[in-house]
Amino acid sequence: MTAPILRMSKLYAPTLKESPNDAEIASHKLLLRAGMMRKTASGVYTFLPLGYKVLAKVEAIVREEMDAIGAQEIMMPALQPAELWHESGRWNDYGPELMRLCDRHDHDFCLGPTHEELITSLVRNELRSYKQLPLSLYQIQVKFRDEIRPRFGLLRSREFIMKDAYSFHATQESLQETYDDMSRAYGNICDRCGLDYRPVEADSGQIGGKVTTEFMALAPAGEAELVHCSCGYAANTEAGECICHPTLYKNEGLEKIATPNVHTIEELAEFLSIPESSTVKALSGKSDDGRLVVMFVPGDHELNEIKASRAAGGFTLLTDGEMEAFGLHKGSMGPVGLPEGAYVIADRALEAVPAWVVGANEDGYHYVGAALGRDFTVDQWADLSVVKPGDMCPDCGLPLQGARGIEVSQVFQLGTKYSESMGATFMDEDGKEKPFIMGCYGVGVSRTVAAIVEQHSDEGGIAWPMSVAPAHVCVIPLSQDDTVMSTAEKIASQLADLDLEVVIDDRKERPGVKFADADLIGWPLQVVVGKRGLENGTIEVKLRRTGEKRDVPLSTLVELMSFARRQAKANKSGVGTFDVLFAS
Amino acid sequence: MTAPILRMSKLYAPTLKESPNDAEIASHKLLLRAGMMRKTASGVYTFLPLGYKVLAKVEAIVREEMDAIGAQEIMMPALQPAELWHESGRWNDYGPELMRLCDRHDHDFCLGPTHEELITSLVRNELRSYKQLPLSLYQIQVKFRDEIRPRFGLLRSREFIMKDAYSFHATQESLQETYDDMSRAYGNICDRCGLDYRPVEADSGQIGGKVTTEFMALAPAGEAELVHCSCGYAANTEAGECICHPTLYKNEGLEKIATPNVHTIEELAEFLSIPESSTVKALSGKSDDGRLVVMFVPGDHELNEIKASRAAGGFTLLTDGEMEAFGLHKGSMGPVGLPEGAYVIADRALEAVPAWVVGANEDGYHYVGAALGRDFTVDQWADLSVVKPGDMCPDCGLPLQGARGIEVSQVFQLGTKYSESMGATFMDEDGKEKPFIMGCYGVGVSRTVAAIVEQHSDEGGIAWPMSVAPAHVCVIPLSQDDTVMSTAEKIASQLADLDLEVVIDDRKERPGVKFADADLIGWPLQVVVGKRGLENGTIEVKLRRTGEKRDVPLSTLVELMSFARRQAKANKSGVGTFDVLFAS
Repeated sequence: MTAPILRMSKLYAPTLKESPNDAEIASHKLLLRAGMMRKTASGVYTFLPLGYKVLAKVEAIVREEMDAIGAQEIMMPALQPAELWHESGRWNDYGPELMRLCDRHDHDFCLGPTHEELITSLVRNELRSYKQLPLSLYQIQVKFRDEIRPRFGLLRSREFIMKDAYSFHATQESLQETYDDMSRAYGNICDRCGLDYRPVEADSGQIGGKVTTEFMALAPAGEAELVHCSCGYAANTEAGECICHPTLYKNEGLEKIATPNVHTIEELAEFLSIPESSTVKALSGKSDDGRLVVMFVPGDHELNEIKASRAAGGFTLLTDGEMEAFGLHKGSMGPVGLPEGAYVIADRALEAVPAWVVGANEDGYHYVGAALGRDFTVDQWADLSVVKPGDMCPDCGLPLQGARGIEVSQVFQLGTKYSESMGATFMDEDGKEKPFIMGCYGVGVSRTVAAIVEQHSDEGGIAWPMSVAPAHVCVIPLSQDDTVMSTAEKIASQLADLDLEVVIDDRKERPGVKFADADLIGWPLQVVVGKRGLENGTIEVKLRRTGEKRDVPLSTLVELMSFARRQAKANKSGVGTFDVLFAS
Repeated sequence: MTAPILRMSKLYAPTLKESPNDAEIASHKLLLRAGMMRKTASGVYTFLPLGYKVLAKVEAIVREEMDAIGAQEIMMPALQPAELWHESGRWNDYGPELMRLCDRHDHDFCLGPTHEELITSLVRNELRSYKQLPLSLYQIQVKFRDEIRPRFGLLRSREFIMKDAYSFHATQESLQETYDDMSRAYGNICDRCGLDYRPVEADSGQIGGKVTTEFMALAPAGEAELVHCSCGYAANTEAGECICHPTLYKNEGLEKIATPNVHTIEELAEFLSIPESSTVKALSGKSDDGRLVVMFVPGDHELNEIKASRAAGGFTLLTDGEMEAFGLHKGSMGPVGLPEGAYVIADRALEAVPAWVVGANEDGYHYVGAALGRDFTVDQWADLSVVKPGDMCPDCGLPLQGARGIEVSQVFQLGTKYSESMGATFMDEDGKEKPFIMGCYGVGVSRTVAAIVEQHSDEGGIAWPMSVAPAHVCVIPLSQDDTVMSTAEKIASQLADLDLEVVIDDRKERPGVKFADADLIGWPLQVVVGKRGLENGTIEVKLRRTGEKRDVPLSTLVELMSFARRQAKANKSGVGTFDVLFAS
């Protein structure tokens, strides 16, 4: 069915010349300026007609990809009874991000930030046999998270649209299959939305589970730090494996040198005129069982607290007072002469460094040439460092590149965390009652809209990929002249007949206003109809993405567009659909 | 695009043999039993895959009808800041049905039961000129209402799906046009959902405004009482005009008769052996300005409190103590000898009755033949009675029929209630700042699903209209026999190629289980493939709606179905699409 032609004169799309003060990043500014959304409260937005069209297109893409892998759509409520969250233990664990309320009978509810509890309770009495497994259910629905500092528009908001899916399995292999299907679907979703993205190794945080991948849209405005490689490897720096090569400075015997006023690695490297990678950084802390643990990482790296905690069985940095009580010297800690009973864990990269430049456990002194085995020992080697650009790719060995990313989606292997705590079991083939093995999978639908704008915009506004554009082509008559208007209307309806979504800027506005709005709103192609061009039998087409313009004979426009449309079938996101119009 | 064939073996549709105890009406029972929804908390439901498919189809119908009249889809948040509700005055007025919560910074919010405040604040700074009017915006979204006694499943729930639309106008004429468009669209929505409905005159309640029509799906389970006429007229008894003909008993002079132990109209009619319609009922109350008002209605009718209040300028019934203080006698009040200053309003139907049978203002006595003008006077005539079946249709004069209805949608003319209280104005053609004239329009989307089930179900289960069925045809192989299964699969894919939505019951279940589930779930047509039939070259088709069965030659099935499909184009809801298969 041919979509009706949109008319700018009727469309509620109030564009703004200036960005509101609190908008810091492109997507936030431009979605407001282009009249696509408005703020209702801090972190709470209304989608106006054009923004809603984009959102609905992203939703449709997500739905298609979910249906294609056999996931079944459902709709769970936003209101969730507190009892379920008590069962999983998250009523207390989740903290103030969970929005809570009481009903008129004083029953506690929360507004779902995620639905693991609800879905587990939904199936636990009805999904009974291994024969019914695997099962994947999903929904596209509003979610609530009371962010302490909502900002960046749709990137970190308090009410937002998510697709969340949950899968139930009898075996780990079955979970892995669905996890792989979901990962592929998530890649397709990013591709079809025109996103430059990386699937990255990540940490699973509050949701629980072990294996997880985040899909990161690369963007300077992203809140996540990543490393990635041309071979395809990518990781969140919070989670990525660190493979680095600290450099040996000297191995000529243990040398204690006075380092007055040297407290940091930077100062130490400068004092000795050596690179930071030739030094070793020490951090002291306590494990969960109260043991003193001292950790060493290459001087040019930071300690990754998640890895530290995993290696030591919990790791809380000592306070200054605690360090003093242990006789440790902040700014000059080292492995030589540590207090009795201190457990030493060092980054495995340091195992290859025979002699370290490191603190002397004495204020104002460091060691050079402290030799592993001779001067000190290490109790445990582990990957402890935060990976950073320049470290080696664990897959191919090339140096990693750095980037920032917007987490648009994430897949998790939950295992039995929720099924065990909530008693959700099935009867397996062997006649035994077992807890479901579960996976969960989320796409930030409204956040994806923001990520698309971060990647597809410039100073003039947005440049939507075809796949999610509120309409494909904007026909712009330059005047109210009869011939101009009737030609523009005719072109609009011819293009609509090609199954293109067409908008016509039929407002009585100056050409400058129409051009600015078309660039700001970001229709992929503009077709400009002016009196002068018509006298020569031409109209102008402008590709929003590149800004290229070209005069096209009126007689061949429709044919060219039809050709472009057919060409585009191969391209998932439709970016580049109209490029053929500009081929010489 | 051909929809993929659903497989019962994979589908998550846990059917139940028994209804849960708290389910009282057909839609509640059957949506649960057919595995279409599950209760999450009191009045809070999860839609399972089949229920979600129906919901999505109803949503799509609503969306198409809204788009067709030029309404633009948006999405407002569920979280609404309290400030906006303070502006309109409804933060206090709305009462405990409004679900309220605090965010982590102690700001008050509510969960939107409706969005007048939000939409008014959305446009008030950006919709500035009469040139931008009229404008209609709508959304399909989750709503919250903390019902004191949620019940009847989707009919009265606390979290539900609504389509709400709002329109802004410069003139009353423009509002009327959109109101008429919306009313027509609402009629189409009901038609396309296969609902037997009546647009009825209604009272506008809490939303405000004056002109309003409710769209009532007729069903015994409905909570609203209606009267309707074969001419098309219908009204909520709360709002409908009452035209009735009280009967004259005697006009032979004022006669005071002892009526010991007569306190009610029923007793009076019995005592005198006359119909209740020959008696006159009296009610005493106070208007808002404290005046004593006595009202008279025909004995066989009830006083309509809304009409009473409108006629008298507020009308609060007197307590027994107040009646005593005024010297009024409960059970024998009448117009003759009322206290000084009492203001008398009588139902206009009584104007045609020259002499009344009515209380004598003395315990144990009534008057017969109390003559209007001679024995008493009436200060004001008004329509005061609750209309009831048997009263005259105000449009055509035929006797009205009674019915119960489910309010599936409602249209309101709000006027300037919200635009004035919230300062939402525009610049009119004459250069003057004026408040918008507004309309609002709601469709209970999830409630519509329930209403459809109330009208399209029997003891065996649901019988969905084609337009909203989770799938059109269920192919049921009666055994796992190779020929049976392969024929069933072939038929399923041939029917899918006809653009029919097909489900195949490929479970290893007994035929009885498959038949019962197919009837319960309510696929419009069942195609039964059995070994015996195949030996004769036939399969059986069963029309769910009527239960009719017929053997059809395998060779002509697809052709017949294709014919049925084409025939169906004319029928909005698709009910009856397959009847042609059963034409002799």
